[in-house]
Amino acid sequence: MKDLTADNITENAIVRHLHDFARETRLSMAEWEYAVDFLAACGQKCSPTRQFVLLSDVIGLSLLVDSIDHPKPEGATEGTVLGPFHTHDAHHMSNGDDIGTDPDGIPMLVHCFYDVQYSNRENPHGRAVLKTDANGQVWFKAIVPVAYPVPTDGPVGDFLRAMGRHPYRPAHVHFMFDKPGYDHLITALTIRGDRFESHDPVFGVKKSLIVDINEVNSELMAKKCGIPLGMKLLEHEFVVVTNIEATKLRREKAQEIMGRGSRKVEFYNDLPFLALD
Amino acid sequence: MKDLTADNITENAIVRHLHDFARETRLSMAEWEYAVDFLAACGQKCSPTRQFVLLSDVIGLSLLVDSIDHPKPEGATEGTVLGPFHTHDAHHMSNGDDIGTDPDGIPMLVHCFYDVQYSNRENPHGRAVLKTDANGQVWFKAIVPVAYPVPTDGPVGDFLRAMGRHPYRPAHVHFMFDKPGYDHLITALTIRGDRFESHDPVFGVKKSLIVDINEVNSELMAKKCGIPLGMKLLEHEFVVVTNIEATKLRREKAQEIMGRGSRKVEFYNDLPFLALD
Repeated sequence: MKDLTADNITENAIVRHLHDFARETRLSMAEWEYAVDFLAACGQKCSPTRQFVLLSDVIGLSLLVDSIDHPKPEGATEGTVLGPFHTHDAHHMSNGDDIGTDPDGIPMLVHCFYDVQYSNRENPHGRAVLKTDANGQVWFKAIVPVAYPVPTDGPVGDFLRAMGRHPYRPAHVHFMFDKPGYDHLITALTIRGDRFESHDPVFGVKKSLIVDINEVNSELMAKKCGIPLGMKLLEHEFVVVTNIEATKLRREKAQEIMGRGSRKVEFYNDLPFLALD
Repeated sequence: MKDLTADNITENAIVRHLHDFARETRLSMAEWEYAVDFLAACGQKCSPTRQFVLLSDVIGLSLLVDSIDHPKPEGATEGTVLGPFHTHDAHHMSNGDDIGTDPDGIPMLVHCFYDVQYSNRENPHGRAVLKTDANGQVWFKAIVPVAYPVPTDGPVGDFLRAMGRHPYRPAHVHFMFDKPGYDHLITALTIRGDRFESHDPVFGVKKSLIVDINEVNSELMAKKCGIPLGMKLLEHEFVVVTNIEATKLRREKAQEIMGRGSRKVEFYNDLPFLALD
């Protein structure tokens, strides 16, 4: 650790990448000071954790980590970012309950099918914990979502402004699925045609997760859900992945990426590392 | 910006490196959460800026940025980290003044030569701003430095403990040189033989900056400095670099590293970027 130079100072993966970044960009001391001040400012916000989550979101790191940690086989519902507004305090509700809270919003029925026992749903106007019925279905009343900005009052807002990026997420509804034996799924449905659909500041939009808002035209559904015909309707089928399959995919990908060539990848607490030989 | 995947989500240099880090290590969501909490904890320390400076120090980034931003030609004094204890409030003193404040310390004369008009000196026991005399010399009384730990009461202390690294910097004296027309020099002399000489937690030790502590055996020096023969003595000659030469070296290196191959590197506000063609 003596006589470290620009060529030998680098050790582990995150440090190697930070150092390579500094070398490649010829990072100046003034730029470094700016970065240190920026990180300190993120920490000085009243909710520093959220500010760093948001920073991770707007540089696409959150989405990437989700895709690494929750790989999906063909046919499974893709995951996406949880977003900086998630809270753990949603109330347990029953199928058909109204979780919307904006009196000016357009009422919408959300009708879903999936093979999970518990689900967690949130949007900027409301959030709730719901449980699927015997058929794997869950439905609730909400309002048609609209685009809204990620928080811009902190350093990450300055960051977006400095890059000339807008803060508006396209209209979407978050979903989180939890079922023993199945890989935790965090996802969100984006409403097709939103003007920000192709420019989500947190990179959370995926083709398979863009949906249309239709209208209820089935008398059966209207009766089951106790709502009028013609009400706005968001319908979706979610497919979750077993823990066994998710673990298998994670390990195959780890072997492929980390073991590139012939190195064997082993696992400790399900975290991958290169075998010594 | 739609349908971003693990393969196409990456854009600029720092983001590319963060993403590659996540891909290579197969970063899990739990590890990501730990990192977010760690950064937030750094920000929650009473002096968040210092905590991020210290973090940069202990991963060798500070030293690297110094070496990139302040390149040195053969024969010039090498730079090193400023360290997390620097303050800007040192008093102006005169040659020969005593800047040591520890009554238990061993008195030491520091006698330097360099071609700068103003210098700034600090160590854990004292700091002062001094001006060279007509011969480019400056001297002051201090105490023999001892090893001391970087701050370990914050998240970066937890980081060092988690990595099994000790926090002790080998005994050293910081120097900072400022002269119009010359590249700002931040450096430090490490006392040879310190038990932490090869294990500085902030990677600040360089062979050319390791010095011996001798004793004053010249009657001329004793008389000039008003100190007794036999007093501990730290003598060093510093060589600073002109702005013109430093800029030339920075630009040559930027062309070499960023322009690898045939791309031309241009400069805006002295910061390098790749020319379009």
